Amino acid sequence: VTDLIYTYLRDKGFKFINSLNGCRIYALYFIGSTKVSTIPGVSAAGAKPELTLYTPACDVEFLVYGKPKSLNAIPVTPEGIPTPALITRACIKLTELPFNVVDCGSYVEPKIPHIKLPSKYVGELITTGHALPYERVKALFNESSHLAKMLGKLADAIVVGESIPGGTTTALGILVALGYNAWGKVSSSSPNNPHNIKEGIVKEGLKGAGLSISECREDPFKAVSALGDPVHISIAGFLVKALELGIKVLLAGGTQMTAVLAIAKHLGADLSKDVVVGTTRWIIQDNSSSIISLIQEVAPDVPVVAAPLDLTNAPFNGLRYYEEGYVKEGVGAGGTTIVTILKRPLNDVLNAIYSEYSKLVT
Amino acid sequence: VTDLIYTYLRDKGFKFINSLNGCRIYALYFIGSTKVSTIPGVSAAGAKPELTLYTPACDVEFLVYGKPKSLNAIPVTPEGIPTPALITRACIKLTELPFNVVDCGSYVEPKIPHIKLPSKYVGELITTGHALPYERVKALFNESSHLAKMLGKLADAIVVGESIPGGTTTALGILVALGYNAWGKVSSSSPNNPHNIKEGIVKEGLKGAGLSISECREDPFKAVSALGDPVHISIAGFLVKALELGIKVLLAGGTQMTAVLAIAKHLGADLSKDVVVGTTRWIIQDNSSSIISLIQEVAPDVPVVAAPLDLTNAPFNGLRYYEEGYVKEGVGAGGTTIVTILKRPLNDVLNAIYSEYSKLVT
Repeated sequence: VTDLIYTYLRDKGFKFINSLNGCRIYALYFIGSTKVSTIPGVSAAGAKPELTLYTPACDVEFLVYGKPKSLNAIPVTPEGIPTPALITRACIKLTELPFNVVDCGSYVEPKIPHIKLPSKYVGELITTGHALPYERVKALFNESSHLAKMLGKLADAIVVGESIPGGTTTALGILVALGYNAWGKVSSSSPNNPHNIKEGIVKEGLKGAGLSISECREDPFKAVSALGDPVHISIAGFLVKALELGIKVLLAGGTQMTAVLAIAKHLGADLSKDVVVGTTRWIIQDNSSSIISLIQEVAPDVPVVAAPLDLTNAPFNGLRYYEEGYVKEGVGAGGTTIVTILKRPLNDVLNAIYSEYSKLVT
Repeated sequence: VTDLIYTYLRDKGFKFINSLNGCRIYALYFIGSTKVSTIPGVSAAGAKPELTLYTPACDVEFLVYGKPKSLNAIPVTPEGIPTPALITRACIKLTELPFNVVDCGSYVEPKIPHIKLPSKYVGELITTGHALPYERVKALFNESSHLAKMLGKLADAIVVGESIPGGTTTALGILVALGYNAWGKVSSSSPNNPHNIKEGIVKEGLKGAGLSISECREDPFKAVSALGDPVHISIAGFLVKALELGIKVLLAGGTQMTAVLAIAKHLGADLSKDVVVGTTRWIIQDNSSSIISLIQEVAPDVPVVAAPLDLTNAPFNGLRYYEEGYVKEGVGAGGTTIVTILKRPLNDVLNAIYSEYSKLVT
């Protein structure tokens, strides 16, 4: 597959993507909420801060039905730019990609058939340093591992996406708690990455938690309990078990996926093979964040591949905004595009996105 | 596969089973509750009538963890004979069969990762003729169809099991409402099939509902809304969509599966291929019920195949009771055994069951 952008560990990434040809691929979109997204200025994944709590449910309802059910409008940024679930839905329909949704702690229960982790939990404000009870963190990890075990070898490869507004801030929290220099490196759904706000929140949380890096590295559940959210730990649980079973995993997301890798790494997972981060061109070309710097620090053996989505010539204003740094990634948009390009030309993907958008506005 | 009992439509059943060789098989166990199971004498799927409401959750928790979580003991009959989930778990472990659980209306939410239908509903007593609101019936059907669509072609074949105490009584209700002579033909988890109790309940419900057969045949949702439960309609929704997609379905259950077929038939499904009922020897040899008579009436094109499980020589009393007509089927025990026998000798299955049982008693 030469249509993709092999950003980091080019040959290994190329080999992984080619090995997906003919594989049975299943996509799982992990959703959850953190109250961090309601802090003004943190997240652009909703028209207003309080609406970001509805975004995960609406995103996945849109995936299934083509319209949300929990609110009467699809998730948009404050400027009205639509959710990347639009890209994901277009891709899923194009190749009839099998998929499901895993609710790890969505504030609103999605009105679709979905996989529920019984310990689902809405993450608290991390400014206190107490994001989730420690036992919940552990339970979410274990339940998600069991999910991977139950699925077994049904799929050869899994695309794992996420929808959690505020997730780059909690990713920053997890990364920093685990001793990585992630300051100024996580991305944002806004062209003006609010690093100062995110850093203020994480620094306050670090103070509240009072944990040392070595404590967190020894027990990454502590880092998540202090500064995390329900989604990163659940994806980590799934990843660790899937890799043990020899299933390939495409982590479909931006800088947040490095927080997943950090958790898995300090739990002893072997990240030397079968796992790749798949994202969008908008993430890898973003000047206000650095996924490459993060991956080099956290998991230098994990390739990063990007879908060459370019909406410059899109026939809709709302989509052309993506080229100005709005949205960038989410709901597995990049990774889902990557596995779609294995089967269909990029141009078909773009047309499917346009067609999906036109249904929204008419 | 010559080890199986091809009871009805021998050649077609044999061909179907052989076509499963090399297929990717996924098992889904649909669970739910009906308050009918709390009527004394109806169900033996629990130590006491009120405990039958816990059985579906405990059954599937046992599948995943090897012990239930919602109660401190595995589901047993009033005589202490263990749930057929024991057989299902032994089989799943033997071949690492991929599986999940679909909660359509379990009174107790299972403490495992599971697929939730958002319209899940505990069925009311059917004696009133109002088992579930009509809109719920429709919603469960649609959500379960969507589940099949989301899964798409990930699996080539699906084993569909059930756990719903009281389910043969609601199956009788559905079948009779749809105009089939099912009196005295549904099976029971007890050796003394309480036909008179079941028939009394269904007759009272028919009176309360006041529906004609032609009304029900024209709109089977009405039959379910009057005399059904959340599980049969959800399985029917999954079956109808899976068959449309060209996925093979092994309905893993006893006489209840004819109620599923009746719903699907009157919704216009093509039952002429890709669907088989897979059950146990205990069901097809049962003198107090007649799955063959039911299938001939309802869906004469659907083969019935049985797993030749024989626990006469089991080293545990609790298992030998199965040979006296206790339990017989449930949690997809027969169908799951059938797909296990595709890969492993029957003797391995028996030893796995013994070993699972010995873990219970030690």
